[in-house]
Amino acid sequence: MEKESTRKIEVRQKVLAANEEAARELRRRFELRGTAVVNLISSPGSGKTSLLEATLPRLQGYAVGVLEGDIATERDAERIRRLGVRAHQILTGGACHLDARQIDRELAISGMEGFDFLFIENVGNLICPASYDLGEDFKVALLSVTEGDDKPFKYPGIFSRSAVSVISKCDLLPHVRFDLRSVEDQIRSLNPSVQLFRTSAQTGEGIADWCRFLSDWLETKRGRSGA
Amino acid sequence: MEKESTRKIEVRQKVLAANEEAARELRRRFELRGTAVVNLISSPGSGKTSLLEATLPRLQGYAVGVLEGDIATERDAERIRRLGVRAHQILTGGACHLDARQIDRELAISGMEGFDFLFIENVGNLICPASYDLGEDFKVALLSVTEGDDKPFKYPGIFSRSAVSVISKCDLLPHVRFDLRSVEDQIRSLNPSVQLFRTSAQTGEGIADWCRFLSDWLETKRGRSGA
Repeated sequence: MEKESTRKIEVRQKVLAANEEAARELRRRFELRGTAVVNLISSPGSGKTSLLEATLPRLQGYAVGVLEGDIATERDAERIRRLGVRAHQILTGGACHLDARQIDRELAISGMEGFDFLFIENVGNLICPASYDLGEDFKVALLSVTEGDDKPFKYPGIFSRSAVSVISKCDLLPHVRFDLRSVEDQIRSLNPSVQLFRTSAQTGEGIADWCRFLSDWLETKRGRSGA
Repeated sequence: MEKESTRKIEVRQKVLAANEEAARELRRRFELRGTAVVNLISSPGSGKTSLLEATLPRLQGYAVGVLEGDIATERDAERIRRLGVRAHQILTGGACHLDARQIDRELAISGMEGFDFLFIENVGNLICPASYDLGEDFKVALLSVTEGDDKPFKYPGIFSRSAVSVISKCDLLPHVRFDLRSVEDQIRSLNPSVQLFRTSAQTGEGIADWCRFLSDWLETKRGRSGA
């Protein structure tokens, strides 16, 4: 088993290196088309799809597409389509994360391109997706207030690599023990330049700020590239 | 990358086969000592440690040990030790699950043995730990009512492989949209013989039933093996 473990690590390093290359190529293409790409990562049930449901109606005037990553079921893509937004479901079978080659392939299959915003909702998993660059502009780590206030330090990889962290389900704060300040301090200590949002998809709290951040990001990106 | 993917799958199969072997050996040892071993699996923040905090004071009269799996921090083992129960923290670095060799090694390091009950709290992840047998009597899948009622069908692997499923944080039911019946139906369709519990570590709901199930299990096991 030790030998297998060593080989596992070697193969993993090669897989990650190949993913980096595919991600660089994707990023070049997104840059060329002026598409802002957002990679949403969290535990199962932290509210990634609900955040998108609250966000998409506020991005009218933009061309928006959504890639939904799940092990099984088409439910999330169906939820997005109900809003009149183009969505394509990626089913991983059993795989615990999306990878850049898969994004490339599924964009081709679905004919999805030319968007202002492309949201990629990763498989529900706070660990494995952190290692796979999908050519995104930035990762967003979601943490809901029902998950406990010890999580950033317990899952440092994702919170240190996400330019944006969203504390979701803030409407449930009165009903749970959750030290918001402590959580934000943990996240800032893992990533001092992090952009933090407190949101509730139920009450709409924080959604306007988050959407303003998104549109500012796109404008800055296009200004920078002269697109 | 296709070649790397194929090699990744081959290595993974060998790692899983080696894990199966180590798990069989562990299971033989646990059987010999009459230890009931419970492998707790869920998303981060579904309440695995809280369930243990509610459970352990009710198992007085039994010798109990807890192995805590986390990527980082000693917090969970500290929480268990505060109850006067022996706990050993396993830090995986970045790994997304525990494996049988690791359990063997960490039991030796910590000198933990001869328990009536050994609880293994896996790394917070609803996907990867499902594939790794730790020599346990059974897996327990936890799902909290704040995570959304679409989860069993979205994560079929773990719910089909867990002899027990616990719906946790039931005290929060009045504050969230969560169709309990639908969730239980999904779980039963994935595993018709599943043992289901509805619990709240806050109010104590369901904890007595769950603890009775545990002590019955141990007695049946020992009756069966004549221990």
